Amino acid sequence: MTTLTRDHFTTLDQQDPLAGFRQEFELPAEHIYLNGNSLGVLPKTAKARARDVVEQEWGQGLIRSWNTADWVGLPRRVGDKIAGLIGADAGEVVVADSTSVNLFKLAAAAVKLRPGRSKILSEPGNFPTDLYILQGLEAFMDGRVQLNTVHRDEILSAIDEDTALLVLTQVHYKSGSMFDMAAITARAHEVGALVLWDLSHSAGAVPVALNSVGADFAIGCGYKYLNGGPGAPGFLFVAKRHQAQLQQPLSGWFGHASPFQMRDDYEPAPGIERMLCGTTPVIGASLLEIGVDIMASADMTLVREKSLQMGQLFIELAEQRLGGYGFGIASSKDPALRGSQVSLTHAQGFAIMQALIARNIIGDFRAPDILRFGFTPLYVRFVDLWDCVDALVDIMATRDWDRPAFKSLTAVT
Amino acid sequence: MTTLTRDHFTTLDQQDPLAGFRQEFELPAEHIYLNGNSLGVLPKTAKARARDVVEQEWGQGLIRSWNTADWVGLPRRVGDKIAGLIGADAGEVVVADSTSVNLFKLAAAAVKLRPGRSKILSEPGNFPTDLYILQGLEAFMDGRVQLNTVHRDEILSAIDEDTALLVLTQVHYKSGSMFDMAAITARAHEVGALVLWDLSHSAGAVPVALNSVGADFAIGCGYKYLNGGPGAPGFLFVAKRHQAQLQQPLSGWFGHASPFQMRDDYEPAPGIERMLCGTTPVIGASLLEIGVDIMASADMTLVREKSLQMGQLFIELAEQRLGGYGFGIASSKDPALRGSQVSLTHAQGFAIMQALIARNIIGDFRAPDILRFGFTPLYVRFVDLWDCVDALVDIMATRDWDRPAFKSLTAVT
Repeated sequence: MTTLTRDHFTTLDQQDPLAGFRQEFELPAEHIYLNGNSLGVLPKTAKARARDVVEQEWGQGLIRSWNTADWVGLPRRVGDKIAGLIGADAGEVVVADSTSVNLFKLAAAAVKLRPGRSKILSEPGNFPTDLYILQGLEAFMDGRVQLNTVHRDEILSAIDEDTALLVLTQVHYKSGSMFDMAAITARAHEVGALVLWDLSHSAGAVPVALNSVGADFAIGCGYKYLNGGPGAPGFLFVAKRHQAQLQQPLSGWFGHASPFQMRDDYEPAPGIERMLCGTTPVIGASLLEIGVDIMASADMTLVREKSLQMGQLFIELAEQRLGGYGFGIASSKDPALRGSQVSLTHAQGFAIMQALIARNIIGDFRAPDILRFGFTPLYVRFVDLWDCVDALVDIMATRDWDRPAFKSLTAVT
Repeated sequence: MTTLTRDHFTTLDQQDPLAGFRQEFELPAEHIYLNGNSLGVLPKTAKARARDVVEQEWGQGLIRSWNTADWVGLPRRVGDKIAGLIGADAGEVVVADSTSVNLFKLAAAAVKLRPGRSKILSEPGNFPTDLYILQGLEAFMDGRVQLNTVHRDEILSAIDEDTALLVLTQVHYKSGSMFDMAAITARAHEVGALVLWDLSHSAGAVPVALNSVGADFAIGCGYKYLNGGPGAPGFLFVAKRHQAQLQQPLSGWFGHASPFQMRDDYEPAPGIERMLCGTTPVIGASLLEIGVDIMASADMTLVREKSLQMGQLFIELAEQRLGGYGFGIASSKDPALRGSQVSLTHAQGFAIMQALIARNIIGDFRAPDILRFGFTPLYVRFVDLWDCVDALVDIMATRDWDRPAFKSLTAVT
């Protein structure tokens, strides 16, 4: 392993085929933003789109915009674009609600497809809202389904004939570790179980091939790698073969076959629209479309290559320059098992991250000791990695982290 | 009844104590907008707020804005402001999700408070999503609760010891008819039943006194009279006395007592925040706050007075000028039983409404024969009512409605 230098990183930026995408985003001056895995940045065109949807479509078009601006078609139109990013077909994805609400809709509907089975399988330490939603479902069904969490290495062997559904996050939010989607889906199907993949840290970050692995269901987040804005609507996927049978309990009017006929009896829409519930969040969905459009214009193979290269380089930098300061590396060194982020560990991780953020280098902290660094290849430069580790070295060497102010703030995803 | 003239209406505008509010809204030029009961108009300050939340809070603040812009506090902060409009206390209302999702959360949680009872009571012709959501709940609970719909005049007598929950819309979306909230709540409580009020056509339109009638639960819409923008988040109310017992099934991470500690086990927040589910739709909730702020600055007594006066005048105008053209009046002539809208009936209602919209006078049509006209006192002028009826007279006298183009469009709420 050669000793890395800053020049090496600037050279990589000059050679980067994705470098031009950076100018499509509005980045705060003098910042390094390594938190796109939590909240993606603002696309420049989203500013004009926000004005258009607020001032023209709402302000001038008013109620007519449901037709003239095709607000009615938004969930499906943006969904079809996301489908292209995750290996799904048109008509299999819609944008709606939040990731949490979408998980409830799909998990509740999925277990009803396997009425004799009592088990939902997940892992401890899965993204909290996934576990919370499944616990809520379990309680609401008075225990007729039960959430079982087993260590990620034991998932395959835990799948059995009593398993109705697996709910797994493909890329782990904290460690960045990845599940083998094909192997788990195949094993689940062998015994008649269904699988629901949370793609919150996958969509726009790693290649996803839902239909080629025979996936059943998926959910994902609009405000991370898809750059849809804070609290953007989530998305959900249902394989065509399941759509006609799937009855979700949140049967609101936007999921009706004929919502505007205003009939008293619910009749689910024939296709993926039956997964909608209430009125579309028009402004949020319109801004999400901008982020999705940019992501769809990038070559996902190049995105993944750059992302892995960044992860590899960041790990090498940490090993070469941070070795003496008590850091560990929580992410897998095997690129096939690593999403678009690297997590370090440190007993003083919270204060160290606060000190870094005070220098306008933004990652985040996850209890008890994880420092997360997300690499979003469309707007993060190679040299940003060097400068981030350089700042960490300085923070450790000068004990800059050891100030009261850096130990008392609250962190938020 | 004296014969009305246009001068009478312009005089009323000159005397209107609420007239100044109109300048706070961005109205399309040369339009009369009588559809604020479906989608409210754009507050002028919402334009700047949209830019601020998109360009500054998201674009520049990025993840830090959860704290620095208090995105974390949005659901409760806006909820507390709405509480003031509906007779609730601080800590009893949050902004979240859609009206439909909020209804599911509350109805599902409420029936669990009355485990021995099997009946949910509503009325046929209630707003469709209310019935659809309750049907979804019924199906998901395998019939352990059942939706019974009875005519609105028979609701009081249908409440019995097997009734777990009533779900009623205070102001009917189509006719504008109003339920007597106090009488129904009192009767329900006599036999131990709970009541969930849908305030979608009430909040910001009529005075609502949730706590003085002893209400249990309520939901409402952000994009009608509150002018929150298309698909704005909804709101929900839970009386303080019910909060500690209420367990809703959509137990996402924003409803957790300590969401950012990222623990595996769900623990509901102690107060109203337990009704939250996923990540707050920040942009939508921020724009809703603008609309709520304007509404909160108006004197609701004056709003209601003007609204009733407008309804009364519109009915008189219809009787005086439209009598020969086959119109009926679907709304109650008793002001105490009428929300902030008047509905006419006509066998050719769809085409007539399209002809009116073509003249930039915007109401809406509801199958099979209802023409709805909403009176939003903050931005509708008295003279608008005259001009609307005047246009209707012309449309009928010239048979302007009888064109193919006016018979083939689709209508959307």
